[in-house]
Amino acid sequence: MAAAIADVLGKRLTEGIVVVKYGHTLADPAATGPIEILEAGHPVPDQAGLRGAGRIVDLLRGATGRDLVLCLISGGGSALMTSPVPGVSLADLQTLTRVLLGCGATINEFNTVRKHISQLKGGQLARLASPATVVSLILSDVVGDPLDVIASGPTVPDPTTFADAWAVLTHYGVENEVPASITRHLAAGLDGTIPDTPKPGDPIFDRVQNVVVGSNRIAARAAAEEAQKLGFNTTLLTTFVEGEAREVGRLVAGLAKGLAREESVYRPADGRPQEVVRLSPPACLVLGGETTVTLRGDGKGGRNQEMALAAALSLAGWKGVLVACLATDGTDGPTDAAGAFADGTTIARATDLGLDAQAYLARNDAYHFFQKLDDLILTGPTKTNVNDLILVFAECVNP
Amino acid sequence: MAAAIADVLGKRLTEGIVVVKYGHTLADPAATGPIEILEAGHPVPDQAGLRGAGRIVDLLRGATGRDLVLCLISGGGSALMTSPVPGVSLADLQTLTRVLLGCGATINEFNTVRKHISQLKGGQLARLASPATVVSLILSDVVGDPLDVIASGPTVPDPTTFADAWAVLTHYGVENEVPASITRHLAAGLDGTIPDTPKPGDPIFDRVQNVVVGSNRIAARAAAEEAQKLGFNTTLLTTFVEGEAREVGRLVAGLAKGLAREESVYRPADGRPQEVVRLSPPACLVLGGETTVTLRGDGKGGRNQEMALAAALSLAGWKGVLVACLATDGTDGPTDAAGAFADGTTIARATDLGLDAQAYLARNDAYHFFQKLDDLILTGPTKTNVNDLILVFAECVNP
Repeated sequence: MAAAIADVLGKRLTEGIVVVKYGHTLADPAATGPIEILEAGHPVPDQAGLRGAGRIVDLLRGATGRDLVLCLISGGGSALMTSPVPGVSLADLQTLTRVLLGCGATINEFNTVRKHISQLKGGQLARLASPATVVSLILSDVVGDPLDVIASGPTVPDPTTFADAWAVLTHYGVENEVPASITRHLAAGLDGTIPDTPKPGDPIFDRVQNVVVGSNRIAARAAAEEAQKLGFNTTLLTTFVEGEAREVGRLVAGLAKGLAREESVYRPADGRPQEVVRLSPPACLVLGGETTVTLRGDGKGGRNQEMALAAALSLAGWKGVLVACLATDGTDGPTDAAGAFADGTTIARATDLGLDAQAYLARNDAYHFFQKLDDLILTGPTKTNVNDLILVFAECVNP
Repeated sequence: MAAAIADVLGKRLTEGIVVVKYGHTLADPAATGPIEILEAGHPVPDQAGLRGAGRIVDLLRGATGRDLVLCLISGGGSALMTSPVPGVSLADLQTLTRVLLGCGATINEFNTVRKHISQLKGGQLARLASPATVVSLILSDVVGDPLDVIASGPTVPDPTTFADAWAVLTHYGVENEVPASITRHLAAGLDGTIPDTPKPGDPIFDRVQNVVVGSNRIAARAAAEEAQKLGFNTTLLTTFVEGEAREVGRLVAGLAKGLAREESVYRPADGRPQEVVRLSPPACLVLGGETTVTLRGDGKGGRNQEMALAAALSLAGWKGVLVACLATDGTDGPTDAAGAFADGTTIARATDLGLDAQAYLARNDAYHFFQKLDDLILTGPTKTNVNDLILVFAECVNP
C-alpha cells in the first residue's frame, strides 16, 4: 500500500511513517519514496511498535488545515500501532490483556477498554490529525467490514464511552486487578478531566473519509465475475460465513450437491412457468468469511484445509462437484498453503494411498492429507488478508 | 397413505396390512377400507411388530403374477416391519443391536448385517411378492432419498452381500458376541445354502417400481414456489443440509446477511454488464435436510429450534432478515413445536424479558426461549416426516 501511494503521488508526498510486521519491509526501500517503514511485533505489541506509533503521533501533531493525511490501514493495526496514553506502559497493557481475557470479557468489551487508554484508537488518530483532511484507505480483515473494529478504527467515530469501559471492569469485578495507571486514566475520563473518544457526529469527521479499498466482498465479487467469465452460472451467496470449519465444510458440500442435482431448477409436471431463480450447472457459488477451528489434535492445517477435508468426506463418490477453500493471504493457518480442493474423488484417492480421512480430520492434520494428494492450493503469500473464499462448482451430471 | 389408497382404488383393493406406531391408527377404521391397520413399537421393535410383519410375509406369499402389490413405505419402517429369518428372535436382534452399536460400527454397517437376517429388508419384500407387479410409494425421511436406506429398502436391490455382513462382525471382532442363531444364518448365506438378498440387475426388479411420493425436495420446491408467489425472488439452494444445528444456524444467518446486503447484485463502476445470478431482496432462500444436536444441557428443544436460536444470536441487530427453521412432521425433537423464527429483533426482545440467549443455547433449551418470545412455529403433527426446511428471507433495507 505504501509503495502504491508513493508511486501514485510521487513528489506530492512529503512525509510518512508505516509500521509493519517484522520481516515485511520491501527489498527496495526506495519503492516507498519518502515513507519510512518501521518494523514491530505482531500479534503481541512490543517497544518497537510503541516507538513507531509515537512517531506517528508526532507527525500528526504537525498537520495543518492545508495537509491531506492518508492513512493506510490493514488488519493487525491494533497491535502494530500501539500508543497507550502517557503513564500507561507496555507491561500495564499486557497485564490488562491478561486480566480481561482471563475473566471472560468478550473481544468487543476488551476493545472498549483498549480504545479508552489509547492515543490513536477509536477515532483519536483523526482528532490528532485535525484540522487536516484525512482519507483512510482500509483493507478489511473483519467479517462484515465494521470500520470501528478494523485496526481499532483510528479514523472512525467510537460509539463507546469511558463509562462503558469502566462498566466492563466492574461487571467482571476486575477493577482492582488492572494496573493503577489504567484505572487512574479511566477515572479521569469518567469525571471529564480528559475528553472521551470522538463520537459519531463529531465535526472532526466532516473532514475524514474512510474508504474500504480491499475486503472480502471485493475479493468475492472479483472471484464471481471471473467464474462467470469462465462460463459458470455464478452467484455470490454471502461474505458472512462464520462457524466451525468442519461444519461449514459439510454444509458447503451440501450446497454443491444441491447445485449438481439442479435442485433450483424445477420443471412442474403441469407446465406452469418456473419462476424461481435458477442456478443451473455449470454453476459456481461464491461464499466468503472466516471460519474457526477448535483444536482437537496436534496435526498441521488451517481453517480452509480443515473445511475442505470435511467437504471431501461429505462429497465422497459424488460426480461433477468441486469445492475450493482458501485464505486470501495465501497462508492458511501455520502452513505454506492457501487452502485445498475437495471433490467426489478425494476420499477414494486417499483410500488408494492408505490415508484415513476421518483420522486426519480428527487430529486437525488436513495439510498432510492434502499434501499427499497434491490437492493443496499453493499461491505463496499474497501479503493482503481479506479473509477466506469458498468456491463451490458443479458441472452438469444427470444423476 | 392407506386411507388415500383406499379412497382412490375403492373396490379394486382386495386386501392389505399396514403397521403403524402405537396411537397412529385413524379414528375411523372404515377410512382404510379393506386395509387392516396394526400398531407396533417404534423406534424399538416389539412382538406386535414381528406379528404384523409376519402377516405381511404371509400375504405376499399368496401373490400371483396377476396381482398388483402396492407398498406404502415411510421412515420408521425398519423398526415397524421387523421380520427376522426363522430361528432369530427379537431378543437376538436386540443383542445384535447392542453389540454392533457398542463396538463402533456405522449405521451403514449395522444395516448391512440387519438386511442379511431379515425376510423383508434389502429387496426381499419384492422377491417375496414375485411374480406380482410391485409399486412402492415412498415417503423419504433420509437426506438425498437413498432408496436402499429408507425403511431398509424392502423393494430395492441390495448392493451388500452375506460376505459384507460377515466382514462387519469380524472387522470389529464381535463374531463371538452376537447370538449363535445370527452367526449360523450368516454362515449358511456364506456357503450358499440360502440365497443372498436380491442384487441390482436381478430380473425380479423388472416388475418393481419405486416412486418417491414425498421427500424433502418435493416439500422444499413447494415452499420455494409458494415464496415466489408471495413476491420473493426465490431459489432452492439444497436439500442436503447436514451438520451440527447451531453451526448450521450460524451459517444460515450468514446467508441472510448476504441477501440483505444484496451481495449477489454487483454494479461495476465501469458500467460493464452484470452477468452473475442475482438474488435481490425481497428474496427467499430455501434449504432442506436434517441437522443434529450434540446434547450439552438438559433443556427442552429440537434441532430446528436450536438452529433458530443460533441464527438469532448471529442476526442480532440486523434489519429486514428472518430465518424460519422447521420440522415437516410438526414435531421438532421432543416438543410440540415444529421449529422457530429468528430475526434481528429476537435477541433484543429476549433481553427485554431478562432472557440470556447464550445460556438457553448452552443448555439446549431453545423451546423455552422461543416460547417466552411467542416465536415458536406451532403447526401440530402433520403425520408426514420429510425432514426439515430452512427458509431465509430478506427484504430491501439499504445498509
